[in-house]
Amino acid sequence: MRSRIIPRILSRVLLIEALLLCLPMVCAGIYAEDTSPFLLTIICLLVVAAALAWLGRKASVSSMRAVEGFVSVGLSWIAMSLFGALPFVLSGEIPSYVDAFFETASGFTTTGASILTDVEALSRSMLFWRSFSHFIGGMGVLVFMMAVMPLDERHSLHLMRAEMTGPVKGKLVPQMSSTAKILYRIYMGLTALEVLFLLAGGMPLYDSLLTSFGTTATGGFGIYNSSMGAYDSVYLEMVVAVFMVLSGINFNLYYLVLMRRSITGLKSEELYTYLGIIGFATITIATNISGQVGGPLQALRYSFFQVASIMTSTGFSSTNFDLWPTYSRVLLVLLMLIGACAGSTGGGTKVSRLIILVKTTIGDLRQQASPRSVQRITLEGNRLDDRTIKATFYYLAMYASLVVASCLFLSAQGADIVTTFTSTIACLSNIGPGLGAVGPAGNFAFWNPGAKVLLSFLMLLGRLDIYAVAMLFSPSVWKSLLR
Amino acid sequence: MRSRIIPRILSRVLLIEALLLCLPMVCAGIYAEDTSPFLLTIICLLVVAAALAWLGRKASVSSMRAVEGFVSVGLSWIAMSLFGALPFVLSGEIPSYVDAFFETASGFTTTGASILTDVEALSRSMLFWRSFSHFIGGMGVLVFMMAVMPLDERHSLHLMRAEMTGPVKGKLVPQMSSTAKILYRIYMGLTALEVLFLLAGGMPLYDSLLTSFGTTATGGFGIYNSSMGAYDSVYLEMVVAVFMVLSGINFNLYYLVLMRRSITGLKSEELYTYLGIIGFATITIATNISGQVGGPLQALRYSFFQVASIMTSTGFSSTNFDLWPTYSRVLLVLLMLIGACAGSTGGGTKVSRLIILVKTTIGDLRQQASPRSVQRITLEGNRLDDRTIKATFYYLAMYASLVVASCLFLSAQGADIVTTFTSTIACLSNIGPGLGAVGPAGNFAFWNPGAKVLLSFLMLLGRLDIYAVAMLFSPSVWKSLLR
Repeated sequence: MRSRIIPRILSRVLLIEALLLCLPMVCAGIYAEDTSPFLLTIICLLVVAAALAWLGRKASVSSMRAVEGFVSVGLSWIAMSLFGALPFVLSGEIPSYVDAFFETASGFTTTGASILTDVEALSRSMLFWRSFSHFIGGMGVLVFMMAVMPLDERHSLHLMRAEMTGPVKGKLVPQMSSTAKILYRIYMGLTALEVLFLLAGGMPLYDSLLTSFGTTATGGFGIYNSSMGAYDSVYLEMVVAVFMVLSGINFNLYYLVLMRRSITGLKSEELYTYLGIIGFATITIATNISGQVGGPLQALRYSFFQVASIMTSTGFSSTNFDLWPTYSRVLLVLLMLIGACAGSTGGGTKVSRLIILVKTTIGDLRQQASPRSVQRITLEGNRLDDRTIKATFYYLAMYASLVVASCLFLSAQGADIVTTFTSTIACLSNIGPGLGAVGPAGNFAFWNPGAKVLLSFLMLLGRLDIYAVAMLFSPSVWKSLLR
Repeated sequence: MRSRIIPRILSRVLLIEALLLCLPMVCAGIYAEDTSPFLLTIICLLVVAAALAWLGRKASVSSMRAVEGFVSVGLSWIAMSLFGALPFVLSGEIPSYVDAFFETASGFTTTGASILTDVEALSRSMLFWRSFSHFIGGMGVLVFMMAVMPLDERHSLHLMRAEMTGPVKGKLVPQMSSTAKILYRIYMGLTALEVLFLLAGGMPLYDSLLTSFGTTATGGFGIYNSSMGAYDSVYLEMVVAVFMVLSGINFNLYYLVLMRRSITGLKSEELYTYLGIIGFATITIATNISGQVGGPLQALRYSFFQVASIMTSTGFSSTNFDLWPTYSRVLLVLLMLIGACAGSTGGGTKVSRLIILVKTTIGDLRQQASPRSVQRITLEGNRLDDRTIKATFYYLAMYASLVVASCLFLSAQGADIVTTFTSTIACLSNIGPGLGAVGPAGNFAFWNPGAKVLLSFLMLLGRLDIYAVAMLFSPSVWKSLLR
């Protein structure tokens, strides 16, 4: 049966999670904290991984289809979040399992939405695991798996496609496992570089590591209740802001620049649009808040940090932007919907999809004006085929449908409209904070367990470009798998 | 030059407006009010119509293209609103021309959004003109023109397509002018029927006429400050609610039922979905507000009226629904986005577009699950071609872009987020009231003149399915016209 490949892949993913959990366990050892929650989770993972490996022992390695790839990735991320929540529960630091699941899904999906009312109350090893989960999820756990334990070529392609984001999914080099390795090297290099810059600014090593995990993964879990505001340092804020912007760029571009040793790779339509939007938003928001924060320079500082944080779907905050005027808050919500570049660690619907949407819509208007003309729609100089355009519209339709369904469900729980709406998009776009009760000064604790489970699934849907998780709910997928 | 046809059509439209203005003038005569504002406007219209007729005297009648049709319709509606505003200004009852333009555009587009803080202060003839403008705009002024002064067949088709709403634009019978006549007969019949029902409930003739204009056109201008709440009569509310629902149905269905003398024409997917949504919303909102309004029966009364009013984009209110709980308000906002059936007098993005969106998106998910399968998407039993599907997505993309652009512009004016967002969609979907400051107890008076002009254009864009007005802002259209 072809679908036997699924437990096989799941088994590998859980094995990797067990290995990765050794790091926070070491951290607990260093700070003389309780290591048993991590140890118990690791044992648990190894047992389940062994069972799954037994289940998948007869998997035919040569007949994997796209649908098995999607389902494997979807189930892997859910399983990782289910097990990753255990240390929080076992240590008693997050007693409710639903809360711990929410927090872990938020970590892996690099959302950064939290149910914690007091982050600083967490032990150091738990804080480490929380931020480390961002790092694990940032570039994709199956991409990591391919980098360390390559499957055969066709499998890898299906898995990578399901885990990567954006309308066009390319690979850098012919071998998928090499592509995975290259991406991970860039990702780790960027993280290491940020750690150095933060250390240079006087931030302690522990803080620097965790902040960098949250930055380059565009995660956004802070280690203080006031997030980056706790340091009140222009230098540190600017370092983090710049690295957020860098992490929201398509990682393929770094590869091109590094390999060809030239900056021609940077001639990217998506990059220019992304930077253009950041520039526009920074300047107009700074103008809008200038009177409120005491002068244009302070305004630029807060504005740039917040725009970079929201546009890249990181979600760090350096001040309570929920108190800003309507224009700034509306623009931040729009940035949440757009998100970062395709192929980056950032979330949202992606800048390239916005470009496709705008170009095709204008093209259609031109077509209507002169029906006999031929409209050529390009992205990065390449003609967009009908399939990509359609896929973009279907993706956006799915995104919108999820927003509508979630808002309806959440609205029955009694929060106000702005909180309900921004909770939904902050989770679906993997941002973290929203406005109102889930603003930078608030958190997601007040939602009831049903809402928390829904929001956790929105984060997973958002991180995996919707399809990998949506397929798990489709009867035709299960029919196809069991055939 | 082909584009000479445009002034020719404009001239006819303004001539018709002059004729229609005689009715409120007669009304002014009956109530012994000042007739001069209407008389002056009529003279003004006749002069301009004559000038335009002279400009278009050499129009070649045989070479009209779709683009000239769109532009003629777009300009006609703008011109009608510009001139229709004059009586309000000349009488001094709405001193600001921008306010009067907003109110008139709101009337013709059957939006029902008002800048009046005290509706009851208006004279009877002005109130008549205000509500009568709904009736004129409801079925389309160019459809009316074709019914009374037919052009040749091809012209009529282009004009009708540009003025009618929905993803698929059909005609009832081979002759366009006959189609126009049939539609107008159904429309007038429905209006007359409502007048009779209202009179039977004890409503005065003047009130019955104006209320019926507002209902069957799905307009929503009330003649009291508390809209339909002023009568506090269950019978009258239910009559209006039922006629709102009837006016939101595709008028082609009435034709089929009347012609074939059987109800098989009612086997319409869109109709079932429309009634299903109204039923679902009525019941869940009633449950949601039951505790607040004093019992389930009262709740059903308010809920059905409000759901019918918002879903059909009418905008009457029988109570202040802005005070309802979040679920009810969120659902009403979603209904604003959906709107009524295609080919009805109602606004919004139309139920049939929602059906196309949902069916194609689910079809795509199925396709991804089994790539070799063939997905057949149908609407009303007919296979949907690629062109219609694309056109639906482009329309929705245009709608969303307009919402985003308008929210950004309005957000700089200082209103709160909910007011800003619902002002936009209440105008673009031709609803009337929104939530917050533009809720049923509020009005649009506080927006600055720039915002009012923008909102007026949103109403026109919404009423004409976006393209006819959007094309006026496209350089390629002007290039094509002047060629």
